[in-house]
Amino acid sequence: MAHIQLQDGLPGIVGPLAFSPETAQPLLQLAEVLLRGPNTLTSAEREMIAAHVSYRNECDFCQLSHSAAAAAHLGGSYDLIECIKIHPDAAEVSNKLKALLNIAGKVQKGGKYVTAQDVDRPRTNGATDKEIHDTVLIAAAFCMYNRYVDGLATPQPLEREAYREMG
Amino acid sequence: MAHIQLQDGLPGIVGPLAFSPETAQPLLQLAEVLLRGPNTLTSAEREMIAAHVSYRNECDFCQLSHSAAAAAHLGGSYDLIECIKIHPDAAEVSNKLKALLNIAGKVQKGGKYVTAQDVDRPRTNGATDKEIHDTVLIAAAFCMYNRYVDGLATPQPLEREAYREMG
Repeated sequence: MAHIQLQDGLPGIVGPLAFSPETAQPLLQLAEVLLRGPNTLTSAEREMIAAHVSYRNECDFCQLSHSAAAAAHLGGSYDLIECIKIHPDAAEVSNKLKALLNIAGKVQKGGKYVTAQDVDRPRTNGATDKEIHDTVLIAAAFCMYNRYVDGLATPQPLEREAYREMG
Repeated sequence: MAHIQLQDGLPGIVGPLAFSPETAQPLLQLAEVLLRGPNTLTSAEREMIAAHVSYRNECDFCQLSHSAAAAAHLGGSYDLIECIKIHPDAAEVSNKLKALLNIAGKVQKGGKYVTAQDVDRPRTNGATDKEIHDTVLIAAAFCMYNRYVDGLATPQPLEREAYREMG
């Protein structure tokens, strides 16, 4: 049962967003810009960053819904995203994305964990300042969304199937 | 030196906001609604929640700027806010606010740390679902803002005086 009275049948973040429309608006707009706005990082890459951080924060709703979104962008296969969540350095993705995922993992622990060396790594693999900025902000934002969803103990289905349509 | 090239002379979050106007807009709107929008929690109470979480995340810019904002709302004295940051249960504030600050501290560690007992405590002291919701979201949002500021290693003055006007 959620910690506050939320509308029935709305999983994860959907219940709190319906409960508080005045905060829902900037929260949804931020996710839209970060994950689906114009960017040199693909939406699949940005969803992988979101899923990796949400997995590390153990937020079932967020990691499953953003895994589904990443898988949808990748033609429906979950193999790559499952690897990205758990051990990104072993995944078959570019060195640039591996280095950005390393930064995202540091941000998940706390902003001060990100070192100059962590930032040099994507840069030597072609990442721009904008891509580094967006990676830090996506990771930081999911530390918020994950805490919002779990801090209110919202209902969260655990079966992948429940998220396929959302993705 | 910041991890990415930011405009000179802009401390803390101000540099990244100027670097990325398309994300600045929802980030600023969210802070506006949470801290200064219509609410049964006073702006001073909401700034205390923001300062407490930012202190726990060791984000100098955020904890000093929101301490200054809380102090400004409280007539200029920093005594109460310094106590709130470090040991809220010892502060001279309502039992409701103490109980909400306890929830904020749990959210700072992670959403799943918030228990049903943690939520019963403000409720038995008169807190509404909306106040509990807003506390969780303020705490979650500052876990984002703090990581955004520190994850990019932005310049942050350490003297209280630098923040008084901002507050």
